[in-house]
Amino acid sequence: MGKIADKYIKIDKWKIIEDGFNAYNGMVSESIFSLGNEYMGVRGYFDEGYSGEKLIGSYLNGIIEKDEIKLSNSYKGMVKNKTYMVNTVDWLYTRISIDGEELDLSRSNIREFKRILDMKQGILTREFIWDTSKGKSIKITFERFVSMVESKLGCQKIVFEPLNFSGNIEVESGLDFSRWHQAEKKNLWACPKKGKEKNIIAILGETLKSKQKVLSAFELKGVPEEIVRYFMEEKFVGVKFSLFLDKSKKRRLEKIVVNYAEKNISKTIEEVWKDGMAVAKKLCSIEYEKAFGQQRDYWESVWKSSDIVIEGDEENQQGIRYCIFQLYQTYHGEDSRFNIGAKGLTGEAYSGNTFWDTETYCLPFYIFNNPRAAKNLIEFRYKTLPEARKRAAELDCEGAFYPIATNDGSETCGLWQHASLQLQASTGVAYAIWHYDKLIEDKKFLYTKGIEMLIEISRMLASRGQWGQKNNKFGYFAVMGPDEFQMMVNNNFYTNIMGKKTLAYTLEVLIEMTLKAPQQLNEIEKKLKLCSQELEDWKLKEENMYIPYDEKTGIYEQHDGYFDLPHINIHSIPVEQFPLYHSWSYDRIYRNDMIKQPDVLMYMFLHNQEFSFETKKINYEYYEPRTIHESSLSPSIHSILASELKKYGEAFEFFKFATRMDLDNYNRNTNEGLHTTSIAAAWMNIVYGFGGMRSDGKILAFKPSIPDTWKSYSFNLLYKGTLLHFKIDNKFVTVYRINGPVVKVNIYDEDYLLDSNEVKIALQ
Amino acid sequence: MGKIADKYIKIDKWKIIEDGFNAYNGMVSESIFSLGNEYMGVRGYFDEGYSGEKLIGSYLNGIIEKDEIKLSNSYKGMVKNKTYMVNTVDWLYTRISIDGEELDLSRSNIREFKRILDMKQGILTREFIWDTSKGKSIKITFERFVSMVESKLGCQKIVFEPLNFSGNIEVESGLDFSRWHQAEKKNLWACPKKGKEKNIIAILGETLKSKQKVLSAFELKGVPEEIVRYFMEEKFVGVKFSLFLDKSKKRRLEKIVVNYAEKNISKTIEEVWKDGMAVAKKLCSIEYEKAFGQQRDYWESVWKSSDIVIEGDEENQQGIRYCIFQLYQTYHGEDSRFNIGAKGLTGEAYSGNTFWDTETYCLPFYIFNNPRAAKNLIEFRYKTLPEARKRAAELDCEGAFYPIATNDGSETCGLWQHASLQLQASTGVAYAIWHYDKLIEDKKFLYTKGIEMLIEISRMLASRGQWGQKNNKFGYFAVMGPDEFQMMVNNNFYTNIMGKKTLAYTLEVLIEMTLKAPQQLNEIEKKLKLCSQELEDWKLKEENMYIPYDEKTGIYEQHDGYFDLPHINIHSIPVEQFPLYHSWSYDRIYRNDMIKQPDVLMYMFLHNQEFSFETKKINYEYYEPRTIHESSLSPSIHSILASELKKYGEAFEFFKFATRMDLDNYNRNTNEGLHTTSIAAAWMNIVYGFGGMRSDGKILAFKPSIPDTWKSYSFNLLYKGTLLHFKIDNKFVTVYRINGPVVKVNIYDEDYLLDSNEVKIALQ
Repeated sequence: MGKIADKYIKIDKWKIIEDGFNAYNGMVSESIFSLGNEYMGVRGYFDEGYSGEKLIGSYLNGIIEKDEIKLSNSYKGMVKNKTYMVNTVDWLYTRISIDGEELDLSRSNIREFKRILDMKQGILTREFIWDTSKGKSIKITFERFVSMVESKLGCQKIVFEPLNFSGNIEVESGLDFSRWHQAEKKNLWACPKKGKEKNIIAILGETLKSKQKVLSAFELKGVPEEIVRYFMEEKFVGVKFSLFLDKSKKRRLEKIVVNYAEKNISKTIEEVWKDGMAVAKKLCSIEYEKAFGQQRDYWESVWKSSDIVIEGDEENQQGIRYCIFQLYQTYHGEDSRFNIGAKGLTGEAYSGNTFWDTETYCLPFYIFNNPRAAKNLIEFRYKTLPEARKRAAELDCEGAFYPIATNDGSETCGLWQHASLQLQASTGVAYAIWHYDKLIEDKKFLYTKGIEMLIEISRMLASRGQWGQKNNKFGYFAVMGPDEFQMMVNNNFYTNIMGKKTLAYTLEVLIEMTLKAPQQLNEIEKKLKLCSQELEDWKLKEENMYIPYDEKTGIYEQHDGYFDLPHINIHSIPVEQFPLYHSWSYDRIYRNDMIKQPDVLMYMFLHNQEFSFETKKINYEYYEPRTIHESSLSPSIHSILASELKKYGEAFEFFKFATRMDLDNYNRNTNEGLHTTSIAAAWMNIVYGFGGMRSDGKILAFKPSIPDTWKSYSFNLLYKGTLLHFKIDNKFVTVYRINGPVVKVNIYDEDYLLDSNEVKIALQ
Repeated sequence: MGKIADKYIKIDKWKIIEDGFNAYNGMVSESIFSLGNEYMGVRGYFDEGYSGEKLIGSYLNGIIEKDEIKLSNSYKGMVKNKTYMVNTVDWLYTRISIDGEELDLSRSNIREFKRILDMKQGILTREFIWDTSKGKSIKITFERFVSMVESKLGCQKIVFEPLNFSGNIEVESGLDFSRWHQAEKKNLWACPKKGKEKNIIAILGETLKSKQKVLSAFELKGVPEEIVRYFMEEKFVGVKFSLFLDKSKKRRLEKIVVNYAEKNISKTIEEVWKDGMAVAKKLCSIEYEKAFGQQRDYWESVWKSSDIVIEGDEENQQGIRYCIFQLYQTYHGEDSRFNIGAKGLTGEAYSGNTFWDTETYCLPFYIFNNPRAAKNLIEFRYKTLPEARKRAAELDCEGAFYPIATNDGSETCGLWQHASLQLQASTGVAYAIWHYDKLIEDKKFLYTKGIEMLIEISRMLASRGQWGQKNNKFGYFAVMGPDEFQMMVNNNFYTNIMGKKTLAYTLEVLIEMTLKAPQQLNEIEKKLKLCSQELEDWKLKEENMYIPYDEKTGIYEQHDGYFDLPHINIHSIPVEQFPLYHSWSYDRIYRNDMIKQPDVLMYMFLHNQEFSFETKKINYEYYEPRTIHESSLSPSIHSILASELKKYGEAFEFFKFATRMDLDNYNRNTNEGLHTTSIAAAWMNIVYGFGGMRSDGKILAFKPSIPDTWKSYSFNLLYKGTLLHFKIDNKFVTVYRINGPVVKVNIYDEDYLLDSNEVKIALQ
């Protein structure tokens, strides 16, 4: 893969530790030390300002700006509007100086720098000693968290401890809306209202074009009111004060912040101010330690149900906990208007966009840990169905065509070849409905919203596909499958078979409904004007879907003509040419058998149980050597399949990359933000990979293995309302029920009823 | 084709006549009545200004502006700079008023409007009677021509004849650089110098970014100097005067203009002024009638050698003369830095760009009429070889990759899929060299510049192609062939076979040179570091080039998988959906077997003699019904092949479209400019089509036929220095030599020596 770890984070089972300030990795650390709570996210930037390279990034989920895309040649179906997550308010804004000398880690004389993210408690601390040019030494500690309990609440604590002097320190603290958006290279806010009500200081920002509003408010604790001077600028409100410090005595400041986001643009400035201030008045009064107590409790319960414990591998123990921590921070199902951006809320790359990764890479984690979150992710697609219908019409299709990249449901990908040719976002939604129903059995959802989406996606699939002239089979022409290194191909295996699956499943649910939900069926038929001819048409197309397969070799052909594509030995490509998008002529990427990420193998992961061991082996051994894993999502899927195929060494190599992708900055772009969806794949990598779980068959099945170097690993799963515990060590697989009803699972091809007894089986 | 004629031009054998002002077709007429002389071109706009819809377009060959292309996502090989022909100086600028009432054909009360382009003499006249609101009636005649003899010279004559009054008329005349560029919607000129030297008034314009300079100067004749007031504005110089007219007496004004274009940007403003004024001083003194005499003589000699006479079809007689006239106006080989834009010098659409049409559609006309022009067109490609080398490097290729669209040799097409995937510009250059050598036998050119281009194109072809993995054949992957409705395909028949031809021809010339030009061979080998391994590599690739062909049916497959593409009955597409680029989703165009323009058939035209009648018939009958002819270049090629296949009705239908494409505005976009390269195809349509000429075999061969409704047609050909005359009537084919050495031609498969006797053969 040509990817090498950059290790500077200290290993610890529960903590992410930067010991000594590492300016070279400044922006990488900002990403790694990001905090979030689904509602908001904030990068691990320095509260006190910093003149070095930085991205003072603070994001509120769903707060986006809109813009036109300027195309030199525009044709029907090309996207003309983009949306992107905006950088909002720097609510940690602090400035500190002593004797007129400003604290700035890129210039100041500091020592004993330490930054620690405590994942067990959900808190970030940073401390160092500052030696001023006049010889004063002071230890400063910053602490922050964003509340998982009160989503609008952010808390900051600063502790000053003068080591060798008594005297004044000058402090500014405020709310700053003047930061720039990184890619747009400008600020995107107007601040039409600012004010102070009692102890609360607030500012209201409004995005320039989308007209969304954010009220940010704070109360400062630990400073006598009489010394505080309130001040404001165009896009800033805050306070200044001079604090007298006694030698060797700690003095603490607490800043309790509320960020209130309003996406409904019909609300006036006054209304948002009023609503936001009501929340602020309620929340800002909370004591820092009380809020932190709630935070600790929350994380304690998360780890109780969702922790993965690895004995014998601290590096990956740290890595996988980091993944689980960031997944919860990014999304835990508070609000179905939110989704999971490729970078979560940790950076501006990919514009905050959600891709098809949500349904295929992230959903399993939520299904087995947090079913409400899983449901809300699918609800997001239902809420945005009107946008998907519009998009289908733009592409001369019927039904609904889901966007490949979106913030609010509308397609925002400016590369037409991706936006128009990739059908996997739509089939991914259908897959998610199927997978969710299979495991959660939420029939109420399936028979109303689920079936509505399935019908609309099936309509798109029936109208977008065409009949081959020679083979007289149905299929998809001019598509880009999951492997984006093949730009415009016919009969892509993944696209065709996922199309077939979706049509078949829609028909299956409709038949199920004739028996089990005739009234709801009647309603949906009326609402969508569904008639029997349409169903017959789908059936015909489903039955005649072309699946490219070579009988002789047992290999599924990725698309028409793939087997004759020029071969390239991917190991012959010099490492410095990666990423190829930057160093190869654009068209050159597309004209050989090199694969960016799994395509045939992706389907063999999603519908794993349909294939024999032998078929998976043949196809893995054919396709993996052609795959360069330029997508961060690629290694996990290969690791999972490699485990199944008993290629344990290979499986472990791919796994390392997934769990520590950002901690070790494998892709050299963690500075832009975390690879949030890859993080979800790391969870799958353990449970589906080493745990050998398969959730696509009739019964939840496991074929566990364990990496050579590990002593044991364990994980929990929430399955049909039952919390199960799995532990695998070098000799045994141990499974028991923590709570919930009795369930049956399959281990090494045998069914086990998990009643009150622990099941203990020899590792195979 | 869904194309219907819009007939408003009067039929005449030698003239293009608009009888009565037709405001609705105002801009179409501007295009049709365009004048040009290769150096400059001017649309048929109204000299006196016009408040209706218009494009006051005046162009100087090679005078272009440069700009950056803004891409939302840019990858290697995508074009980042564009060039486009700019609108230059309105040198016909005139304003006329009587009693304060300004003449404006969109508002004034006029009658007896007549506009005539006399193709025999190369002059445009326009006359009408203007009845002013105060009851004055005056006949005004405008006349203009651009000199084919002195390329920098343009002449205007205005005649006033008051019918019912004596009195003053107010006139302004000048040079106006303030016109806007149509697509850019702004003016692109600065005018740093203006002045008057003796009787000559001049202005120097400089393009804002490319910094090219144009000096425009004029002398006005027929007005007493004492009444003239000289005036200027920021981008304008001119004169005003009040002229007393005697009732019923004609009074004439003559404006002699010099436009001097300097593309060498290292020349200073002062230098260009000096050089330009020297030319102006020489040329502006000429008498209008003397210059017109030269013009008449020039055109007389053109018609003597290049006329096509049709008896029995005045419409097409007018049409084909118009084509020949416009071809000469666009290009006649003055300067090898010029080429033929898709719209010639008649409009701004396609940015003045040259496409591969020059070599494949236009060159035959010049080879058989004006060998110097033919050579200069190929010289243009030699001059721009450095740019083609740069482009190859951008596309990760060796050698030279010729641009699909260019003004100055650099690629300027902003659609990467066209600029990166179309190899036919490069193979077209090789074809041109081959065709030129075959007919002109200019070995000096071939052994120096020709071979250098061939080697560099062969290098590109060898490095751009790849080996198929399954068929173990060489071919081109991810290409767009001539049929632009198939965007990114593998093993396009045309691309592969033209690649094979080019490699073979390069090797052939190199072998020829070992015998006939060893010293030049030695020089070129040294200059280009050519070695024998490279030649062996080319040979291997040439011999193993994959040519997709179905043995069973005898049909060449347009590209891998074409036969299985979904079929669409092109006659089922409603006429109002054309052009499809505007009404279909972009990707939808690419996913069926619909063809935009000939692809397999294009090769069967270019290398016609390689295929049997039966093979051509089978392929024509397969591909033509799938072709929608959305390119204006398509019908002629089909007409030529239809003639050969004795589908005479079909051939004539396609032919009509080609000869009168602009006169009858078939594509409804003649307002943007003429379809200059289609015009060249119209000539081929008669000579190669009805005349049945084939120039790709060992001997120049003919199989003439004649459309039912024609009495006869005749044309001349310059062949190996001999001017031949062909006449075909309903009974006979008559051929004789007008001048030059004795040559041999083949008619109906028999060779004839054209000595002093006329050859008369029965029509078959």
